[in-house]
Amino acid sequence: MRHSLAGRAETSMQARLLAQLRDEGPLSRVQLADRLNVSRTTIAAEVGRLTELGMAHEVGPAASRGGRRSTLVDLAPDIRFVGISIGATSMSVGLTDGRLSVIGTRTRACDIRSGPEKVLATALDEVRALLDEHGVTEPMGAGVGVPGPVDFHRGVSVSPPIMPGWDGYPVRDAVARELGCPVVLDNDVNVLAAGEQHAGVARTAKDFLYVKIGTGIGCGIVVDGELYRGVDGCAGDIGHIRVEDFGPTCACGNTGCLEAFSGGAALAREALAAARSGRSPVLAELLAEKGDLSAEDIAVAVARGDAQAVQLIRESGHRIGQVLASLVSFFNPGLIVIGGRVSKLGHGLLAEIRSVTYRRSLPLATGNLPIVLSELGDEGGVIGAAHLISASVYAPSSAEA
Amino acid sequence: MRHSLAGRAETSMQARLLAQLRDEGPLSRVQLADRLNVSRTTIAAEVGRLTELGMAHEVGPAASRGGRRSTLVDLAPDIRFVGISIGATSMSVGLTDGRLSVIGTRTRACDIRSGPEKVLATALDEVRALLDEHGVTEPMGAGVGVPGPVDFHRGVSVSPPIMPGWDGYPVRDAVARELGCPVVLDNDVNVLAAGEQHAGVARTAKDFLYVKIGTGIGCGIVVDGELYRGVDGCAGDIGHIRVEDFGPTCACGNTGCLEAFSGGAALAREALAAARSGRSPVLAELLAEKGDLSAEDIAVAVARGDAQAVQLIRESGHRIGQVLASLVSFFNPGLIVIGGRVSKLGHGLLAEIRSVTYRRSLPLATGNLPIVLSELGDEGGVIGAAHLISASVYAPSSAEA
Repeated sequence: MRHSLAGRAETSMQARLLAQLRDEGPLSRVQLADRLNVSRTTIAAEVGRLTELGMAHEVGPAASRGGRRSTLVDLAPDIRFVGISIGATSMSVGLTDGRLSVIGTRTRACDIRSGPEKVLATALDEVRALLDEHGVTEPMGAGVGVPGPVDFHRGVSVSPPIMPGWDGYPVRDAVARELGCPVVLDNDVNVLAAGEQHAGVARTAKDFLYVKIGTGIGCGIVVDGELYRGVDGCAGDIGHIRVEDFGPTCACGNTGCLEAFSGGAALAREALAAARSGRSPVLAELLAEKGDLSAEDIAVAVARGDAQAVQLIRESGHRIGQVLASLVSFFNPGLIVIGGRVSKLGHGLLAEIRSVTYRRSLPLATGNLPIVLSELGDEGGVIGAAHLISASVYAPSSAEA
Repeated sequence: MRHSLAGRAETSMQARLLAQLRDEGPLSRVQLADRLNVSRTTIAAEVGRLTELGMAHEVGPAASRGGRRSTLVDLAPDIRFVGISIGATSMSVGLTDGRLSVIGTRTRACDIRSGPEKVLATALDEVRALLDEHGVTEPMGAGVGVPGPVDFHRGVSVSPPIMPGWDGYPVRDAVARELGCPVVLDNDVNVLAAGEQHAGVARTAKDFLYVKIGTGIGCGIVVDGELYRGVDGCAGDIGHIRVEDFGPTCACGNTGCLEAFSGGAALAREALAAARSGRSPVLAELLAEKGDLSAEDIAVAVARGDAQAVQLIRESGHRIGQVLASLVSFFNPGLIVIGGRVSKLGHGLLAEIRSVTYRRSLPLATGNLPIVLSELGDEGGVIGAAHLISASVYAPSSAEA
């Protein structure tokens, strides 16, 4: 009993030490002892143990602070994490070191609707190519993000509206079997939120929202520095919040959902309608050139001065702002980060989102509420996925296994 | 340095021990050691210290478990907490023992708009009467809930829409000065949520919402067993979430707010309109009898079979359900508790809230989501306020002071 408790405390100390090195880089034993609030003897013992395990090593001497020179401790240089960030229409896979610096990435188009076997096979092909390219034989773990609800603890996709064939699919175990390493599975917005927190604009935020506007719309929620997943793991599913009583039918079967007004798929549909009706001469031109339109074409039309395209962006931002205002009233976050493919459609979208959110929320909640674009783009998903698996690999329960 | 750390660890152990006795009642040293995962020697030392401080004492022997009989430890019988729960139109004050069992309560009508001096003077009169009645000279602390946003850390009301004169008023310090004991201030829904978690229907819930439908509408948020207050302390302000683009002007100055459709004040206004227009013969009759109508009169009219009153209740529930559905999609709670004066207007309201919430949320989030009425009524506010101050009095920073 006593022995097992002591063991757990040590492993938890290891996890904290590894996370400290991940987030801050090489530190002396003295600095580590200060940061973790334990004695230098304890730190020395832990560093020794981690060195034996091949997780940490000593690097050059620290800058002198007057006394005896201390040796810096760093994560082992050969630690590699895999990050797999799967969206509805494209995926990014990447390789990071122990500090989650990106060593290489690959991005590929994909169609989430082609089902888990095909999509995961493509992702694994890309991962293997990356591992080969960088001479990695044993990644320490892999994080996977998918664009829909997941059961985090079981590592499976759950009833994802835009992902036919994925319901109940054991994504985590399938990827772990193929790569021969521990894997965590989460939804794409949680992965992006984790990435933004580790390496992006949310580095100092404790309570924030990451809103992804892609084909669908979702939200990662961070409470006191930790991802909040909700009781069933589906917190943040804001794409299906009602914004109108009526409206286009959503993939979920309801009408009036935010996603059915403002998601990338909805915008592409609106762009087509505007082109065909003649309301937008520029979009009509683009349609004639390309044979089809995407949400991105609206940005092109805006750049060419098309009034209807400007209006589409504004309406989309307006609906998103209405929902964000509700969330601000409810959650009172310290920061909202906007990301995803559609967020890049130009400043008009963000301006409208900000304007409606600030106007519709109580002054107290918006007095100091930055609403900013994500800094990381595609790399955010890779870093976030790597972060999730690093937390799991460095943490007690996994490290003991 | 070492000394101070050890001191902090001990105080935190005291806080955990006191909270354990508060929530579970008398326990033997062996049970306490098991529950808190520390040695019996540590527990014996802590119990000794708490006995000296007059916080704990020994009671009769525990039921034998075969070995040596162990003596039960309990909170000191003379610990008294004051709970003050102020609503927009009425207040409850109460006295509890250390385990937060209610010893006495008093309820009085009040008008929050008459300003902090007058309202707090009334509350303090009631508290003093209660203290006298029960022979209490030194309460250990008091919790105060007010129906609007507060700055929890500074203990002041902040820009409350329905509370003219309260903005920036130092409620906590004013009450502490009068009662001569530590005080915490929070908003009424947080207080009610804390009460429901300690003694009501949310006892086993880790992530839940407490929705108060009174004159206004607000929401207490519990994440992982702890109240979530948001970055500025105004999380849960759901009364000002937009449900329509147009509608009656709200106290906050916007239009289309939930509260302006479904709060008690809005319902009273709707009832008056229905009575005066002749749409509701029963409400017209009640108006003639009483000279004015309140939200409660709608329930009377429903009981007398008035179709218009049924419709008013249903529309109110419908709007509330729409907002709750958004919150369920965003937050994925494990339980929603509905309380407040207006929640007692009959089963029709709850039925409509449930129906809309379940229909508009994704199946994953509502598969196991009870939506239930509060069990505690007025006592909930008293117990919740006492709970907040007990947590503060038992916890490290206050216990050190």
